[in-house]
Amino acid sequence: MKNTIGENIQLTLFGESHGEKIGVVIDGLPAGFEIDLEKLEWEMEKRKAKGLLSTKRHEADQVHIVSGFFEGKTTGTPLTILIDNTNTRSQDYAQLKYRLRPGHADFAAFEKYHGAQDYRGGGHFSGRLTAPIVAAGAICRQILEAHGVSLASHIQSLHGIEDAVFDFTNQSVLAGQMDALNKAQFPAIDEKTSRLMQETIEKAAMDLDSVGGVLQTVVTGMPAGIGEPFFDSVESDLSHLLFSIPAVKGVSFGAGFEFANLYGSQANDPITIGPDGTIVTTTNNNGGINGGITNGMPIVFQTVIKPTASIYKPQASVNYQTKEPVELAIKGRHDPAIIHRARAVVDAMTAFGLLDLWMEHAATMAFEK
Amino acid sequence: MKNTIGENIQLTLFGESHGEKIGVVIDGLPAGFEIDLEKLEWEMEKRKAKGLLSTKRHEADQVHIVSGFFEGKTTGTPLTILIDNTNTRSQDYAQLKYRLRPGHADFAAFEKYHGAQDYRGGGHFSGRLTAPIVAAGAICRQILEAHGVSLASHIQSLHGIEDAVFDFTNQSVLAGQMDALNKAQFPAIDEKTSRLMQETIEKAAMDLDSVGGVLQTVVTGMPAGIGEPFFDSVESDLSHLLFSIPAVKGVSFGAGFEFANLYGSQANDPITIGPDGTIVTTTNNNGGINGGITNGMPIVFQTVIKPTASIYKPQASVNYQTKEPVELAIKGRHDPAIIHRARAVVDAMTAFGLLDLWMEHAATMAFEK
Amino acid sequence: MKNTIGENIQLTLFGESHGEKIGVVIDGLPAGFEIDLEKLEWEMEKRKAKGLLSTKRHEADQVHIVSGFFEGKTTGTPLTILIDNTNTRSQDYAQLKYRLRPGHADFAAFEKYHGAQDYRGGGHFSGRLTAPIVAAGAICRQILEAHGVSLASHIQSLHGIEDAVFDFTNQSVLAGQMDALNKAQFPAIDEKTSRLMQETIEKAAMDLDSVGGVLQTVVTGMPAGIGEPFFDSVESDLSHLLFSIPAVKGVSFGAGFEFANLYGSQANDPITIGPDGTIVTTTNNNGGINGGITNGMPIVFQTVIKPTASIYKPQASVNYQTKEPVELAIKGRHDPAIIHRARAVVDAMTAFGLLDLWMEHAATMAFEK
Amino acid sequence: MKNTIGENIQLTLFGESHGEKIGVVIDGLPAGFEIDLEKLEWEMEKRKAKGLLSTKRHEADQVHIVSGFFEGKTTGTPLTILIDNTNTRSQDYAQLKYRLRPGHADFAAFEKYHGAQDYRGGGHFSGRLTAPIVAAGAICRQILEAHGVSLASHIQSLHGIEDAVFDFTNQSVLAGQMDALNKAQFPAIDEKTSRLMQETIEKAAMDLDSVGGVLQTVVTGMPAGIGEPFFDSVESDLSHLLFSIPAVKGVSFGAGFEFANLYGSQANDPITIGPDGTIVTTTNNNGGINGGITNGMPIVFQTVIKPTASIYKPQASVNYQTKEPVELAIKGRHDPAIIHRARAVVDAMTAFGLLDLWMEHAATMAFEK
Repeated sequence: MKNTIGENIQLTLFGESHGEKIGVVIDGLPAGFEIDLEKLEWEMEKRKAKGLLSTKRHEADQVHIVSGFFEGKTTGTPLTILIDNTNTRSQDYAQLKYRLRPGHADFAAFEKYHGAQDYRGGGHFSGRLTAPIVAAGAICRQILEAHGVSLASHIQSLHGIEDAVFDFTNQSVLAGQMDALNKAQFPAIDEKTSRLMQETIEKAAMDLDSVGGVLQTVVTGMPAGIGEPFFDSVESDLSHLLFSIPAVKGVSFGAGFEFANLYGSQANDPITIGPDGTIVTTTNNNGGINGGITNGMPIVFQTVIKPTASIYKPQASVNYQTKEPVELAIKGRHDPAIIHRARAVVDAMTAFGLLDLWMEHAATMAFEK
Repeated sequence: MKNTIGENIQLTLFGESHGEKIGVVIDGLPAGFEIDLEKLEWEMEKRKAKGLLSTKRHEADQVHIVSGFFEGKTTGTPLTILIDNTNTRSQDYAQLKYRLRPGHADFAAFEKYHGAQDYRGGGHFSGRLTAPIVAAGAICRQILEAHGVSLASHIQSLHGIEDAVFDFTNQSVLAGQMDALNKAQFPAIDEKTSRLMQETIEKAAMDLDSVGGVLQTVVTGMPAGIGEPFFDSVESDLSHLLFSIPAVKGVSFGAGFEFANLYGSQANDPITIGPDGTIVTTTNNNGGINGGITNGMPIVFQTVIKPTASIYKPQASVNYQTKEPVELAIKGRHDPAIIHRARAVVDAMTAFGLLDLWMEHAATMAFEK
Repeated sequence: MKNTIGENIQLTLFGESHGEKIGVVIDGLPAGFEIDLEKLEWEMEKRKAKGLLSTKRHEADQVHIVSGFFEGKTTGTPLTILIDNTNTRSQDYAQLKYRLRPGHADFAAFEKYHGAQDYRGGGHFSGRLTAPIVAAGAICRQILEAHGVSLASHIQSLHGIEDAVFDFTNQSVLAGQMDALNKAQFPAIDEKTSRLMQETIEKAAMDLDSVGGVLQTVVTGMPAGIGEPFFDSVESDLSHLLFSIPAVKGVSFGAGFEFANLYGSQANDPITIGPDGTIVTTTNNNGGINGGITNGMPIVFQTVIKPTASIYKPQASVNYQTKEPVELAIKGRHDPAIIHRARAVVDAMTAFGLLDLWMEHAATMAFEK
Repeated sequence: MKNTIGENIQLTLFGESHGEKIGVVIDGLPAGFEIDLEKLEWEMEKRKAKGLLSTKRHEADQVHIVSGFFEGKTTGTPLTILIDNTNTRSQDYAQLKYRLRPGHADFAAFEKYHGAQDYRGGGHFSGRLTAPIVAAGAICRQILEAHGVSLASHIQSLHGIEDAVFDFTNQSVLAGQMDALNKAQFPAIDEKTSRLMQETIEKAAMDLDSVGGVLQTVVTGMPAGIGEPFFDSVESDLSHLLFSIPAVKGVSFGAGFEFANLYGSQANDPITIGPDGTIVTTTNNNGGINGGITNGMPIVFQTVIKPTASIYKPQASVNYQTKEPVELAIKGRHDPAIIHRARAVVDAMTAFGLLDLWMEHAATMAFEK
């Protein structure tokens, strides 16, 4: 389905960058779950544009729940979140209707919708649409947390700068790293790296340019046995969601593309008995997933975010209508990087995807008793 | 859905490595399409184990169509393909039931199915299941070809060895490269590289080990405008299918993980008028996809295939039942690499995914007239 | 899926009787379709409560489109309709939380949601939710009409009173009957019957009671060949939608339950050549559908609407919390009949269902060329 | 989806009347369930053609499980059932390709598949396809029974003959009636009625004609709270499945079409405390379902089965190719009634539908703890 996804829990997404409202319907939530609205707001906060690192289009992104939420709790029927678009400057885009922005969906949208698309600010293709996703994911995340799951993402690399790594050898250190990331506005493990990355983004902004990077996400506490072969493998479902996020062009699990250089004897994770008597692996090249199913080890994956397509630098393009060449220096307000904001979206999609997969497993488990 | 996927055209997959039959139901095929059974057989051939590069389990993989095919043509109702498992040696696996093979789904399957899984040869998780996928994809591919689409994959890299690149600057050279790949049993563009890669696989076999690599796929002839924001983006749907293939741990489109090192001004593909007057881009970092929708440029993506998990080398593991450590030297017949065979599976999934997306677009287009 | 339905075009429904807003997301609409908002308003009008025949809860039901609609046309991305709940008197229901209303979902909802449901006015189970369905269906109907399809429903019977029948022997008379029904606020073919039915409803209201009836729907202009065996048969998909409407307890096609009394030689519709050279049947017991597929004859079906469950008469019930017997005389504002309002909902569901099925057929047809 | 249905448990159906094999894939079964193959065979037996009441095409309908079943138990991965078509006489149909059989899908199929359909014996539209459905449903039924659910159907009426009624006032009498029906080859409660119905069928056969009737189904033991508003209401999901069965033209729940003649005060089921302290209703006009959700009372519904379309009596029709009138006296082997055989199919669909809905509820319930 185009704008609806999920099996036992579903998201339906709608809206455009410069339309009146954007929003999401979440269906299939358990009834009676008390949503912590402050925690939800904090997820929204992490996605917001701020300071020199982001666009000057600052949206309040006030989450407005209009259904499925009664006396502070989920009702079990569709929960609908609306967010107003308040800070639009559509005139910035009027000149752009036929001037195709490189790296954007403008041309593809013309070919698809034949001119009927809302072209202002990228319309339905805009990163604006990820705001309701963050809100929906924040609710899923709270449900997962109530069942012992934690997750966090950091910028593994940004234009050549590498962050420190997660410490998987020590659970309490890892928990500390994850906690710090979830509390930080800019998601890097190492403080010095964090400053360096931010300076790189600011410099790109000054150069009228933009940069991209790689996010790495880790999830702990998911039980083993979640995921369904063949087509609801954890990797399939998560990648499906992640690639729906604008600007994502690659997803890899565990050792990812490094597997191409390993021998099987290096790639396979040896199996042993952990300190608490459970079966664990001594390495985690498979990123917590075997055969598409969780194995109880931390789930680890990487998501590459391309540099923001909107830049101030002049670019060569074409006028769709006249077919004449144009030089585009995109006006409007842009992000010199979105990877730090995309972190909140990746976390949201991850929470949603894992909750849905867990529910799918729970549905059959109820009949194994 | 677990073993069914697709919207307007669907695959339903079933079977186990050592069960009686494996198979697939393809529903939603256009009626009256004449299937070229020889071409279908050739796709099956590309996936087959042969010589020193693969397992000694040689299966005839005779495709048996038992429904939906009448007088040489599709009927428009479900087409069912059955393939017999003939060359099974289940006794090789009897000792393995509780001995968890590193890199395999054994442990995860135990946690999921509590011992009810058919553990022989990996059961439902086996690469055997990809045989019916190849057959189903071969039919989809023929339909796409009848509408002007071509596709081909090569091993971009194998354990450090890099193949030559596709020549996107010259359409007839590119068509020649693709044609040659589709006719080759071992999919490398450069002949010398091909030999080197094969020697590397043979050497890994002699070392009782295995190797992995990266496949790169290119698709030409897809019209612009295919793919549906948000959740049926081309990247979302293709990655979903690709990650369902056992051993796939990463998927990237166009410049993929390289985007992390580019500036926006480098990453954006400049837009211009092509020789035939159509709008094209001068580079193709976005791999033919913007905003999740095809833009008419070649679709390009990479898929990393991990080294085969089954190796003869002894590995550290655990007995699931007794929780005691075991040293595993996996018996049975294994592939020292599967990337060359996986190529046929990646091609099949690609053809299926693109046909389904094209149908989704066609459904609405019929009402725009 | 719980509140989302459809394959190529989807509805996602949300809201509660006394919540802030109710609404619907329609995804998969063709791009560039000009919506006639006046015609849409007229469909809403037909569903509205008015006069003595209906509840005194009069809602403006102002349709507010907040996405997917740009410069008077559909964009091809999700079109979202919001409707405010303005005229709520939640205090009428406060006393009812634990007092289970007979004929309503109160008890079932308690068992399902364990008290978390929004119980006010039936919450998510309320007939209020059918307002956005009517709006969504009105758009689908306009698209069908642009492709030559007409549809209309009348009250075939109401508490023993039978309406005149559709004249299938004369196409222009039939078209006139359908047109008149679509223009009428109260949907009966015969004027005298119409008055009688309305008097019956008014009398039931005076008796603090309610009445039900049977709607009959006819659709002309659908091409033959729409519908998909087995599980997307026209009957399956339409009945699925119709039974989702609150108060619907039976659906039958063509001769319906009368088939139980016919011989095969009477039931089978003889086939002949029509005046315009096309193949037609001389009777239409099968209601335009054979094997789940349209045969080009008018589609005819019946939907039974039970008497409104909310009545002023005292009824025997139980307090869910205390498990003590209670006598309920439901306060609030109720409809002594909803069948005349339900007509608009049945028409909407029909339009949506047929458009989705037609799209499903169009998707494969595009590849038969 | 065309030939796949279900959310947490899915059926995928394939085959044609005169093809090599028909079959079904059942995905989503709980792992480790021990299937009672004798009970499964008995369900198949109830559907078989026998004696004077049915066609002389007697098929062994040997159920052959080729996947998902290991050491007597379900594996949790797709269970595939194949059934051979052995007793085909395709020559009976060769003359019929263009001679459209009244009451059949022949014409509709031509319009849909443009001659590519397998026309022999109705092809994919044949009642043969219900054999694998019965097998799949039998497994679901066993799972439901293991969780306390019972179900049974009887012929409520056949060409004017009415059977005795279920005794809902006495649970042990009701259980006895249900048990007797499930053990009987011909499903009538009253023995005398049973004979009369069978004589009526035999007489229709002698008259070269056929008869239809109404099945009534009752389900006990389903917990309250199953079913999902709006679009997965119990009525929506069951009717969807029932209308997929060839020859079904009407479905009603509880009082069904009788609701049209009742006042609300008669239709509403008064609520009281049952002998065991649970909340029950004193009547059951709503057939155990309110707001689309089970209320714990017996689920009761009616399904009308039209007279078999294939009859020996000459009928007026048309040659599709030449457009000339033809008189058809259908050769081949036909059923003078199928209602007694259809009983097994209705039971199967019911079991599947309810298990799927229960799983859907269980998926969210797992997260309410």
